[in-house]
Parts: sequence; C-alpha cells; structure tokens
Amino acid sequence: LFALSGAAAVGFVAVIFVLRWVLHFKEGLAWDGGLAEFNWHPVLIVTGFIFLQGIAIIVYRLPWTWRCSKLVMKFIHAGLNLTAFILAIISMVAVFDFHNAAKIPNMYSLHSWLGLTAVILYGLQLVLGIGLYLIPVTPVSWRAAFMPIHVYSGLFLFTSVIAVALMGITEKLIFGLSNPKYKDSPPEAIFVNVLGVLLVVFGALILWIATR
Amino acid sequence: LFALSGAAAVGFVAVIFVLRWVLHFKEGLAWDGGLAEFNWHPVLIVTGFIFLQGIAIIVYRLPWTWRCSKLVMKFIHAGLNLTAFILAIISMVAVFDFHNAAKIPNMYSLHSWLGLTAVILYGLQLVLGIGLYLIPVTPVSWRAAFMPIHVYSGLFLFTSVIAVALMGITEKLIFGLSNPKYKDSPPEAIFVNVLGVLLVVFGALILWIATR
Ligand code: HEM
Ligand code: HEM
Ligand code: HEM
Ligand code: HEM
Ligand SMILES: O=C1O[C@H]([C@@H](O)CO)C(O)=C1O
Repeated sequence: LFALSGAAAVGFVAVIFVLRWVLHFKEGLAWDGGLAEFNWHPVLIVTGFIFLQGIAIIVYRLPWTWRCSKLVMKFIHAGLNLTAFILAIISMVAVFDFHNAAKIPNMYSLHSWLGLTAVILYGLQLVLGIGLYLIPVTPVSWRAAFMPIHVYSGLFLFTSVIAVALMGITEKLIFGLSNPKYKDSPPEAIFVNVLGVLLVVFGALILWIATR
Repeated sequence: LFALSGAAAVGFVAVIFVLRWVLHFKEGLAWDGGLAEFNWHPVLIVTGFIFLQGIAIIVYRLPWTWRCSKLVMKFIHAGLNLTAFILAIISMVAVFDFHNAAKIPNMYSLHSWLGLTAVILYGLQLVLGIGLYLIPVTPVSWRAAFMPIHVYSGLFLFTSVIAVALMGITEKLIFGLSNPKYKDSPPEAIFVNVLGVLLVVFGALILWIATR
C-alpha cells in the first residue's frame, strides 16, 4: 500500500516534470514540423507509455478494483494498455514527422532501434492479450499456459521502455543544450536528470508491486 | 537449458564486440590519461559488470553446479559478484582519471548519476549478501526473511546496469563520431548499436532464467 501510493505520487511528479521541461525550458507544444512538435515525443512517452502502462500493470493489485468483477478489471487493464499504445504511436508520428521536416535521418540510433522494437512487441502483447484473455474463445488450459509468458514479457517491455526513455533523455540533453552545454550542468540539465531518476524510481516501485 | 546456452553465447559475443569496438574502431587500451584509458570503461563494464554479474545470478541454475555443495555454490556466486564489483570499480577509476586529465567535468550526466548509484548499491548488496548468507552467524529466519529482497534488488541492479550501459553507449557514439557523425550511420555506429541489442538480449535471457 505504501509502495502503491509511492508509485502513483512519483509517476505523477514525473508527468509534471516532463510538462515543465517542454513548456518552461523548451519550445512548448505544437504540431508544426518543428521542435515544438518533437516535444510531443517525450510528453506522450512519459504520460502514456510509462505512467499509464505502469498503472495498467498494477491495476489487479489496487484494493479498490477488488470490488469489481474480474471481467471489469480486465477491461481496465486492457483499456489502459490500449491507451498507452495509442499515445506511443502518436509520439512516434511526432518524431518521424519532425525528422522528415528537418531532414534528419531516421532510425540511426540505438535508441530508435530499441524503441521501435519495444513499440512493435507491445502491440503484439496487446493483440495476444486480447485474443487470449478477453475474447471468450480460448481454452482455459491455454490461458494458464501463456500466463507466465504474458507476465514476463509485460514486465520486460515495461522495463525496456524506461531504459529507452533514459537513452532518449540523454540524447536530447546532448543535442538540445549548447552554451551552456550538458557538461556545464545548466538548470535544465539538472532538472531533466532528476526526471530520469524519477522514472527509474517509478519503474522500481511498479516492478516491486507486480512481483509481490 | 536452451536459454542457458543462449545467454552464455550472446554474452560471449557481446564481450567480443566491445573488444573489437575499442581495439579496431577506437584507440585501443592503455592507462595514459587519454582516450585509450577511457576505453577500459566500456570493456570492464561489459565483461565484468554485465557478463560476470549475469553468470553469477544464474549460477544456482546451472546443472553442473548441482553436484557441488550449497556452500561451494555460494562461494562461486559471491566470488563472481565480487570480481564483477572490482572490475566495475576499476572502470570507474578509468573514466574519472580520463575526465580529470582532459578537464571534463565529473558527474554531470544522468548516465553518471544512475551509474554511480548502481555501483554503490551493488557494493551494499554484496556486503549484505556476505553478512546474511555466507558468514554463519545470521539466524535462518533472517536469511529467509531477506531472501525476496535480495533477489528483487539483485535483479533490479542487474537490469539497471544494462540500462546505464545503453545510455553510456549512446553518449560515446554521439561524442566519438564526427564526420561521418552518428546520424550518418557509419560502420562503427551500426556495429555498436548491435552491441547494445546484444546486451538487451543477454539481459532478457538472464532474467528469464532467474525468474523460472
Ligand atoms: C520508450 C519510449 C520511447 C520510444 C519507444 C522512442 C522511440 C523513438 C524512435 C523510434 C525514434 C526514431 C525517430 C526517427 O528516426 O525518425 C526516436 C527518436 C528520438 N527520441 Fe525517442 N523514444 C522514446 C522515448 C524518448 C524520450 C523520453 C526522449 C526524451 C526527450 C526521446 C528522445 C528522442 C530523440 C532526441 C530522438 C531523435 C534522435 C534519434 O533518432 O535517436 N525519446 N525515439
Ligand atoms: C501490451 C499490453 C499488456 C501488457 C504490457 C500487460 C502486462 C501484464 C502484466 C505485467 C501482468 C502481471 C500483473 C500482476 O501480476 O499484477 C498482466 C496480467 C494480466 N493480464 Fe496483461 N498486459 C497487457 C495486455 C493485456 C490484455 C489486452 C489482456 C486482456 C484482458 C490482459 C490480461 C491479463 C490478465 C488476465 C492478467 C492476469 C491477472 C491476474 O493476476 O489474475 N493483458 N499483464
Ligand atoms: C553500468 C555500467 C556503467 C556505469 C556504472 C558507468 C558509470 C559512469 C560514471 C560514474 C561516469 C562519470 C565519470 C565522471 O564523471 O568522471 C561515466 C561516464 C561515462 N561513461 Fe559510463 N558507466 C557505465 C557504462 C558505460 C558504457 C558501456 C559506456 C560506453 C562507452 C559508457 C560511456 C561513458 C561515457 C561516454 C562517459 C563520459 C560522459 C559522462 O560523464 O556521462 N559508460 N560512466
Ligand atoms: C552484488 C552482489 C549480488 C547480487 C547482484 C546477487 C543477486 C542474486 C540473485 C538475482 C539471486 C536469485 C538467483 C536465482 O533465483 O536464480 C540471488 C540468490 C542468492 N544469493 Fe545473491 N547476489 C549477490 C551477492 C550475494 C552474496 C555475497 C551472497 C553470499 C553467499 C549471496 C547469496 C545468495 C543466496 C544464498 C541466494 C539464494 C540461492 C537459492 O536459490 O537457494 N548473494 N542472488
Ligand atoms: O543461507 C541460505 O539462506 C537461504 C534460505 O535459508 C532463505 O530462504 C538459502 O537458500 C540459503 O542457502
């Protein structure tokens, strides 16, 4: 319960931090092919792909859901994961669109390779989850047999998404700061490093809850 | 068993890749305050802190250790983790020494914050592990009570170390490549991106084995 409230609080603060990063330190948000369009990328990743996915993963552990039927819980779990996926897709469109407008090559970085792979596998996890656990055609023996794989790959994807976000933060601080540079620790660098630490703490709490 | 041989093979190839990176693409290895001293940093992290730590974690699951007594297994587990820790410390000395010689600020990056935290917590885990499970003074009830925490924090640290390494690889490719730059995907960029993918696959296999 302590871990639950801690995770919610840390996740919420991380969302505030990413908004303050792009609105206060950066160019704000817009859909104009420029840097303000790029900014949707970190905002949607942190709010959607990290925060909502984290909540989706622990939803079966929330005391207030125990009053709901199992089917309702499944709809909440699936719905939050679907929302996270849609926001991740929009955030992909934002970077690709920005890169094309600015004539920056696509898919050159380790960040982009691991990131796109994570999004695709997450889509697969979603489709398999719906097919196995929501549509009432799958035999119970199959459901049970796939559950350890569903849980392992779900937790692995969640962890990978945070790792990919940390790489993205690192890239953006290096590319975005000049005079003073990242090396010179301007306020923005410290602020966004703290955002990175918050994401790791959020991940640690969600993984702790999900493995109890 | 398939996962076991897979993990060993992927880990071994990752070690080859990091050696080829620094020896073929980069300045080689030396202890001279220059870039060749920096290169000890990724080499010791990948061979020691990632590869050896991974093997240490799954040592209780290796069929050939089942012939050993529990005490011998514990010595192998503790010894490999201690070796990994020492190599991580040397790799820290290498970067700090390089930074001081080149007048680059210390501890400005998210990579360095999370990396140093992981090394310190790993040292704590090592001391607690020895005190709780190797020195025969701790009551069995304590040993049992701490085991879920030992396993969770061990797996969490292992995962964090890989995430930190992916950030380090990203930084080094951005700083180290110019004309052609990282964006232009020269052979070194592709090669080292593949190293990053190998580290993620190694991590996935170790975590799979350790959670079965
Ligand atoms: C798990 C979450 C994330 C995923 C799946 C992801 C995915 C991607 C992908 C696929 C690209 C390549 C776009 C292209 O080549 O046109 C990209 C680029 C980029 N992302 Fe992310 N990203 C994530 C989180 C973040 C975060 C939190 C930041 C922080 C600002 C970030 C910063 C960047 C930057 C600077 C680029 C351009 C450089 C490059 O292509 O590597 N990313 N991202
Ligand atoms: C990409 C999307 C998804 C991810 C990342 C994901 C991840 C997870 C994780 C990590 C768990 C373990 C949670 C825990 O032990 O507390 C879990 C459990 C579960 N998931 Fe998903 N899941 C996804 C989609 C779905 C979908 C679409 C369904 C369909 C309803 C589904 C059905 C279930 C069920 C039935 C459980 C077991 C709950 C229990 O403990 O009884 N999942 N999921
Ligand atoms: C988990 C493994 C790792 C840990 C704990 C770690 C730790 C650190 C620390 C503490 C620093 C700061 C040194 C200083 O400020 O003087 C640093 C710097 C650096 N590391 Fe790592 N490192 C790891 C893996 C890697 C890897 C695999 C690379 C790939 C080449 C790498 C590349 C760098 C670079 C380029 C710097 C200098 C820029 C900076 O300070 O962020 N690191 N590392
Ligand atoms: C930083 C160092 C260490 C890390 C990262 C670590 C990590 C782990 C992990 C992940 C496991 C679970 C393995 C599995 O389930 O297959 C484990 C089990 C264990 N570790 Fe450690 N460990 C460390 C140091 C130590 C030390 C120094 C000892 C003292 C002997 C120790 C004793 C044990 C024991 C007794 C187990 C349980 C084995 C069993 O399943 O019966 N660990 N450790
Ligand atoms: O010393 C030990 O402690 C644990 C166990 O007693 C706690 O669960 C274990 O497997 C040992 O060999």
